[in-house]
Amino acid sequence: MKLSVTDTVKQSKGERTRARIVETAARMFSQDGFRATSLREIAAVCGMTHPGLLYHFANKEALLSAVLEWRDEQDLDTFRRNGSTKDRGLGVLRGMVALAREASSSPGLIELFTALSAEATARDHPAHDYFQKRYRRIHRGTKNALKRAAEQGYLRADLATDEKAIDDAAHELVALQDGLQVQWLLDPLIVDMAGILERRISRLLTVDLWAE
Amino acid sequence: MKLSVTDTVKQSKGERTRARIVETAARMFSQDGFRATSLREIAAVCGMTHPGLLYHFANKEALLSAVLEWRDEQDLDTFRRNGSTKDRGLGVLRGMVALAREASSSPGLIELFTALSAEATARDHPAHDYFQKRYRRIHRGTKNALKRAAEQGYLRADLATDEKAIDDAAHELVALQDGLQVQWLLDPLIVDMAGILERRISRLLTVDLWAE
Repeated sequence: MKLSVTDTVKQSKGERTRARIVETAARMFSQDGFRATSLREIAAVCGMTHPGLLYHFANKEALLSAVLEWRDEQDLDTFRRNGSTKDRGLGVLRGMVALAREASSSPGLIELFTALSAEATARDHPAHDYFQKRYRRIHRGTKNALKRAAEQGYLRADLATDEKAIDDAAHELVALQDGLQVQWLLDPLIVDMAGILERRISRLLTVDLWAE
Repeated sequence: MKLSVTDTVKQSKGERTRARIVETAARMFSQDGFRATSLREIAAVCGMTHPGLLYHFANKEALLSAVLEWRDEQDLDTFRRNGSTKDRGLGVLRGMVALAREASSSPGLIELFTALSAEATARDHPAHDYFQKRYRRIHRGTKNALKRAAEQGYLRADLATDEKAIDDAAHELVALQDGLQVQWLLDPLIVDMAGILERRISRLLTVDLWAE
């Protein structure tokens, strides 16, 4: 299909509108909860009509999917800034600590995603498949990062030579992020989420996490 | 106030009725979700009238509190059976692994509590204070268990002599339980929740976790 110039311009404007809706929805879901926020209210805050919003997102589940993808993009940016695309594995581990640090400035968003991932463990939840795939992907990425670090001699010897221990450690680091978020949200002044995660990761390494 | 024999008997019957309501509610909240289950439906399953149930629990929040307390009692039983009241600290650590094993037979209940603890991070949630206190108590209990294990020479030397590392490890073990539950609920055939937790705890120790 050939797009005319007008179509192209339209599409680009449409994408900008979608981005604005997604960022507004993420903020409102964070502040008021996913269930308590209606598409009608999101439309109003965006200065759009309800049918106008429905043109971009047919229902709240579709908008939720877009918010989840948008957050993954944000996270990916944080990982890239910390060197996750380099070959030595430490960038991904640094990215995990950086994400935990950034979380402190957006507790509402962390609260939203903590509640959503927990809700989505129910098989009939609209985001169940998304979260199942997401956790598999994150586990794979963390495991690969640990393996690459091992190849560089950056991992403690007892861990580096044990495939099962590396697989476990990947599940553990991901679980640690999630579990610490719950403790931190409940007790932000007491639980040093980023510090505990950073010290845990550092104890796996033979080198300084930030030295590479 | 002096209770007559009749009052005493009445109270005891009331307690039995309350227990029946609480166990029914826990099962229904697990199966259908906390929000989707009404007091009216719980009353019907208990073979009671709606006002009859309201006599025991004035609203859903009161019933939720009772379910949370009931679950804590169940968990405490598991800890006691594993020797948590003995003086050497390993009983509490064994109890954590036992809880993770038992979880496999009640995914609905785990799903309920995972979703509830996440929801309850919101400051205005009726169970917020309960969960804040619960996590503080569990952290304190885990930390004390690790300290007692250290006093027996059961903890790895680098951990045993470092107060901060023990504090971190207590936050970590609690976070690990919670985070692994999310991964396990999403992928029960792939994520060996109890095994990962047991291996993690074992790596902190100089003795066999089950040997005491």
